[in-house]
Amino acid sequence: MTRIKVLGAGVSRNSQEMADGRTIRYYDTQSQIRSAIDERPHESQPSIGELRLDSLLNEWIALASHRQSRTFLPPKELCPLCPTSKSGLSEIPDADYEVVVFDNRFPSLRPPEDVWSLPETRGPETPKAPAAGVCEVVCFTPHHGQSFAELTPRQVRTVLEAWRDRTAELSSLDFVRQVFPFENRGEEIGVTLMHPHGQIYAYSYLPPKTEKMMLAATRYFKNTGRILFDEIVAREIRDEVRIIAQNEHWIAFVPFAARYPFEIHVAPLSPVADLTELSMQACDSFPEMALEVLQRLDGVFGIPMAYIAAWHQAPVREGRDLLRLHWQITSVRRAPGKLKYLAGSESAMGAFIMDMLPEQSAGQLREVVLNK
Amino acid sequence: MTRIKVLGAGVSRNSQEMADGRTIRYYDTQSQIRSAIDERPHESQPSIGELRLDSLLNEWIALASHRQSRTFLPPKELCPLCPTSKSGLSEIPDADYEVVVFDNRFPSLRPPEDVWSLPETRGPETPKAPAAGVCEVVCFTPHHGQSFAELTPRQVRTVLEAWRDRTAELSSLDFVRQVFPFENRGEEIGVTLMHPHGQIYAYSYLPPKTEKMMLAATRYFKNTGRILFDEIVAREIRDEVRIIAQNEHWIAFVPFAARYPFEIHVAPLSPVADLTELSMQACDSFPEMALEVLQRLDGVFGIPMAYIAAWHQAPVREGRDLLRLHWQITSVRRAPGKLKYLAGSESAMGAFIMDMLPEQSAGQLREVVLNK
Repeated sequence: MTRIKVLGAGVSRNSQEMADGRTIRYYDTQSQIRSAIDERPHESQPSIGELRLDSLLNEWIALASHRQSRTFLPPKELCPLCPTSKSGLSEIPDADYEVVVFDNRFPSLRPPEDVWSLPETRGPETPKAPAAGVCEVVCFTPHHGQSFAELTPRQVRTVLEAWRDRTAELSSLDFVRQVFPFENRGEEIGVTLMHPHGQIYAYSYLPPKTEKMMLAATRYFKNTGRILFDEIVAREIRDEVRIIAQNEHWIAFVPFAARYPFEIHVAPLSPVADLTELSMQACDSFPEMALEVLQRLDGVFGIPMAYIAAWHQAPVREGRDLLRLHWQITSVRRAPGKLKYLAGSESAMGAFIMDMLPEQSAGQLREVVLNK
Repeated sequence: MTRIKVLGAGVSRNSQEMADGRTIRYYDTQSQIRSAIDERPHESQPSIGELRLDSLLNEWIALASHRQSRTFLPPKELCPLCPTSKSGLSEIPDADYEVVVFDNRFPSLRPPEDVWSLPETRGPETPKAPAAGVCEVVCFTPHHGQSFAELTPRQVRTVLEAWRDRTAELSSLDFVRQVFPFENRGEEIGVTLMHPHGQIYAYSYLPPKTEKMMLAATRYFKNTGRILFDEIVAREIRDEVRIIAQNEHWIAFVPFAARYPFEIHVAPLSPVADLTELSMQACDSFPEMALEVLQRLDGVFGIPMAYIAAWHQAPVREGRDLLRLHWQITSVRRAPGKLKYLAGSESAMGAFIMDMLPEQSAGQLREVVLNK
């Protein structure tokens, strides 16, 4: 059974059930009807993992011990993210697609089967809980050898519509507290499938970074009556030296206190809490900005850069007036052949040491000549 | 000029000035006099870096832009951590040593030249500050090809005495807030010098992890009147399944909510705030425990494991009754040929996903047969 929904920017969504009961959603620009059937044998779903409290730091850790068997750098002809073809049945039943989002086959977090609530944290006595949440995979393009930076503006616009749709739908689940779309790119950071794709994690708990951002924003608001992130953007605009790209609706800058050799924050100039709140104008001008930023990143050393591109959004039901949507892109590459590793100070103490001035990396990113 | 100090366990310390004004300290067990002169040409010291506040998370970042030029995987005959010999003048002027600690040639943090205080954090308006602190290098052995796990118990005892001495002395500096001895081991985590060595960072600010541990311990104490870390150890002793080694004065366990495929916490059974407070009995039984733990780690896959070994201590002047000394060893190796990478969820959100149950890795560590 195919269910169709019409979204913004002329994008329609076909949802279908996969052989093992998971859902796949096709995001299309030509109002296609998607009816290809998943011909693979039925596979039983892994059971839900567990959440354990690290009481020393008061942080939840998700344990998903079934994931060790997940697919690891398969050859191109066995890629599970390419469309299904004569060479193999993939995760995508159809012979072609534009953008798809489907439930992860090896999810770290899963929807709970019963009524679920997060235990109150209270030290080593805190009980375990099922690792509730949702993990989805987002395929940006059917073409195996492409990268996000090589998409057309139209394709990026469709990906954005898919992210917005998933944020809206996942936010409506009562066990979901935070929705996090992201992309890991590059073998250097452990990517196990080379096909251009991202992921979405919907957490049932507040991730530590979100919690810490909320704490800082709350404190700042109490002291000044102002929104912290808006003041940070205002400061970057005043300082100017770290801005690397700007259009009518978006700004991209290397933050004043960057943690990585290349770190870029991209923010809408009209601040919003999450992707669903973006205006149509902001959405329509996002592809130009996203492509410029990623092309500048790949241009710095003339090699594809490993990066993590992370959408920070306000949590679903709290801090909506205090936290702002922004896209954070970080790369561990310091130079061709040199990576920044998180060793003792960063990993064990959380204390970041940076070898490069943010003004210097902003300069390198600005100097890249783009093929427009 | 050589200055000599007598420490515990028959260890004496010779301090000497290096050619560029840095200090080197020899820790010896035979009351040697060390008088070899650093024959290298004088080299000017890099200037102090800067601390910038990442106001989004309210965390200090240390910028040390001179460090990009530091020594990167030199061949054995040019190793700066071997004793000085015919093949070259190294960081250690003498032709032999047991354990040495010297000021880092490429320090991320340096003692401030003027009166110094940490600015109050107040959002994007927070001023920069000089990156005050101290960075030292600890050489565990003169033998280039050894590892910590291959030291004799006597050598480990001398290293411990050096760590204790440095903690005491660095704690007395008015700009130092936290002393952190650690070892990064393995090229996989970015180690640039293969000679067995560790480092000591003395921070002028509270590192984010220490701050978070303090928050959790304070909250727990307010709610229960008990010390969080002591309750965590009590719980591990009760549960038993994650203990991997124990003697009269120390216990080693995989924590209930481990973040890494192999993570071991080692704690004294009589809790103390930092290394200087350990009893002589606890000090004397540490080498046996340390060697067993590191040998178990190397034994799991029969290959030298990359790891970070981090001494968490109470800060110098706060939380001394709430935080406890423990040694945290983490390894990113999941299997031979497979590493755990910190990607989107861990890096951008701080939300750790673990593929392996702590009980499982504790079992693997216990099963290792040691060559005693």
